[in-house]
Amino acid sequence: MTYCVGLRLNKGLVFMSDTRTNAGVDNVSRFKKMFTWVNRGERVVTLMTAGNLATTQAVASILDERTKAPAERNPSILEVPSMFQVARLVGETLRDVIAANDGDGQSADAFKASVIVGGQIGESEPRLFLIYPEGNFIEASGDTPFFQIGETKYGRPILVRAYDPDMSFEDAVKLLMVSFDSTLKANLSVGLPFDLQIYEKGALEVGRETRIEDGDPYFQQISTVWGEALREAVDSLPSFKF
Amino acid sequence: MTYCVGLRLNKGLVFMSDTRTNAGVDNVSRFKKMFTWVNRGERVVTLMTAGNLATTQAVASILDERTKAPAERNPSILEVPSMFQVARLVGETLRDVIAANDGDGQSADAFKASVIVGGQIGESEPRLFLIYPEGNFIEASGDTPFFQIGETKYGRPILVRAYDPDMSFEDAVKLLMVSFDSTLKANLSVGLPFDLQIYEKGALEVGRETRIEDGDPYFQQISTVWGEALREAVDSLPSFKF
Repeated sequence: MTYCVGLRLNKGLVFMSDTRTNAGVDNVSRFKKMFTWVNRGERVVTLMTAGNLATTQAVASILDERTKAPAERNPSILEVPSMFQVARLVGETLRDVIAANDGDGQSADAFKASVIVGGQIGESEPRLFLIYPEGNFIEASGDTPFFQIGETKYGRPILVRAYDPDMSFEDAVKLLMVSFDSTLKANLSVGLPFDLQIYEKGALEVGRETRIEDGDPYFQQISTVWGEALREAVDSLPSFKF
Repeated sequence: MTYCVGLRLNKGLVFMSDTRTNAGVDNVSRFKKMFTWVNRGERVVTLMTAGNLATTQAVASILDERTKAPAERNPSILEVPSMFQVARLVGETLRDVIAANDGDGQSADAFKASVIVGGQIGESEPRLFLIYPEGNFIEASGDTPFFQIGETKYGRPILVRAYDPDMSFEDAVKLLMVSFDSTLKANLSVGLPFDLQIYEKGALEVGRETRIEDGDPYFQQISTVWGEALREAVDSLPSFKF
């Protein structure tokens, strides 16, 4: 499994992904699930993946190869004119990779994957998309300002309750740490290290990027203090009376 | 879907279940998922169910019929000598009902259900069990002092963080309200009203029981105040610095 979250803030975009992949509980590996393409001053596109690892690696590789072979017939993620076209390109690539595995007595279900892709091109607003295995996609809006993929449920309530589009990048990262901590506590298939990337609106270059390693003191502190903070929050609620 | 939680406290047991059942999103009904058998002064057994409604209703009906036909060959839930035997009886009944639907081109998967059963018989300690569709079961212990069935993920982090075996019944109910609220906010298939039952250790009669109706002022208050309390809890955490 996997856990990735993409947040759309008024200040820009925040991406965070874990790095654990597993087939069963004893075939556990570490893979980066965040990929970025940059043409400084013109565009930044960041992609996070969940699902079948062979599928998601193939999608990332195909997208990457095309940027290096501009003579090819197919458009490159560094060339299409809008984030909408980026989402379409990623969606088509994802669908094609999954479809290529279908048949021969295999069901496409086993090869499914989903993708969060976000970024900014030129003067347009930063945009954030969730792409389904079928290749179609939805865009984050004021009503649904963030997307999760992978093991989404444990970490969702805190996002629903505490997300605010006006929050600072620092507060957004803090919130994501809590959401990832709740997921980590409940599900073995989500694991440290986490990759974190900030995209500041209008920057058109990759913002601050960091990897939160196993034993990261800030994450450990959040994890410890959050347990207490939650218990205090419950204590502060009005008491039930029969 | 469904959401039920059984908590084992030092003071006794707490049961809470929702009442929504659905097949698709437009075939929504309300059914009680909590069943209690009492022989005052001798035993109290409470059962909560999740899964296929036909299966769970059949299990409850079969268990209930047997208590009224004591001449039958099969043991009754009011007669077996221990809570372990109660769990075994419920497990066998559940497995038999599911197996009876198997075959005829139908897979047993569609008829699966799981059960939480708890209570006390005579001088023995109160015990709490989680019963799988296969009929086998596990018992709550100091390490795993509560069970959830149905839509368990959204409401789990708060239980993991704030549960304390020494807590009062009032605090336990407050905690369950928060856990149910988080689930309700995220999943349409879990719905009010909720059934709540307390079993006080050694009482050997049903403790306080109540139904939390749609529009219950306490639940609404918890739901509102919890959002704020969570945001404050996040604010109270140390800030992230790049």
